[in-house]
Amino acid sequence: MSPDRLSTTFAALADPTRRAILARLISGEVSVTDLAEPFEMSLPAVSKHLKVLERAGLIARGREAQWRPCRLEAGPLKAAADWLEHYRRFWEQSFDRLDDYLRELQKKEKKNGRKK
Amino acid sequence: MSPDRLSTTFAALADPTRRAILARLISGEVSVTDLAEPFEMSLPAVSKHLKVLERAGLIARGREAQWRPCRLEAGPLKAAADWLEHYRRFWEQSFDRLDDYLRELQKKEKKNGRKK
Repeated sequence: MSPDRLSTTFAALADPTRRAILARLISGEVSVTDLAEPFEMSLPAVSKHLKVLERAGLIARGREAQWRPCRLEAGPLKAAADWLEHYRRFWEQSFDRLDDYLRELQKKEKKNGRKK
Repeated sequence: MSPDRLSTTFAALADPTRRAILARLISGEVSVTDLAEPFEMSLPAVSKHLKVLERAGLIARGREAQWRPCRLEAGPLKAAADWLEHYRRFWEQSFDRLDDYLRELQKKEKKNGRKK
């Protein structure tokens, strides 16, 4: 996956409606009409979001003329998660530091407890 | 983290130069001048990218007047990874299906091997 592909993925995810659409597809295929319903949006507005998701390869659509269900395509999400994985040690470090701090605090409290 | 915070994070990540800047900060704090060097970009162009990253909370900058080093801030990256985590089973399923297919193929080959 080239860097531009990753940019397209992140750009597509940078919208709460598009993320909500992907979340709805977790439970399976959904028709465009059913997708539009909870968002109180016009069908053209939802279609626009779907086109962005489709171009980013995040969804695929059935070929049935009447009912073109949308389904989730996980490939680009995996690539995004793989990219983020390189930074995991940074957020785990922050938690480690918090852990160390809390342990230090507990030790001090125990010490003070004994003194009393 | 509100949905808008997540949109800001994904929008900031939707650029190869900004992702390259974050990658450079993996090894530690870097000055803006040093950051600009490998990109063959003007300092103002790099500064613009840094502002986007700073607004998204992905980097923080030192307060020293002369040398304002940038460092990585992992919080928003963790939030993005947490969001993507909901979709993990989708890409793992695809690998499982590939696994099943390969196992089926091996079984068939063994059978054919015995027949020969």
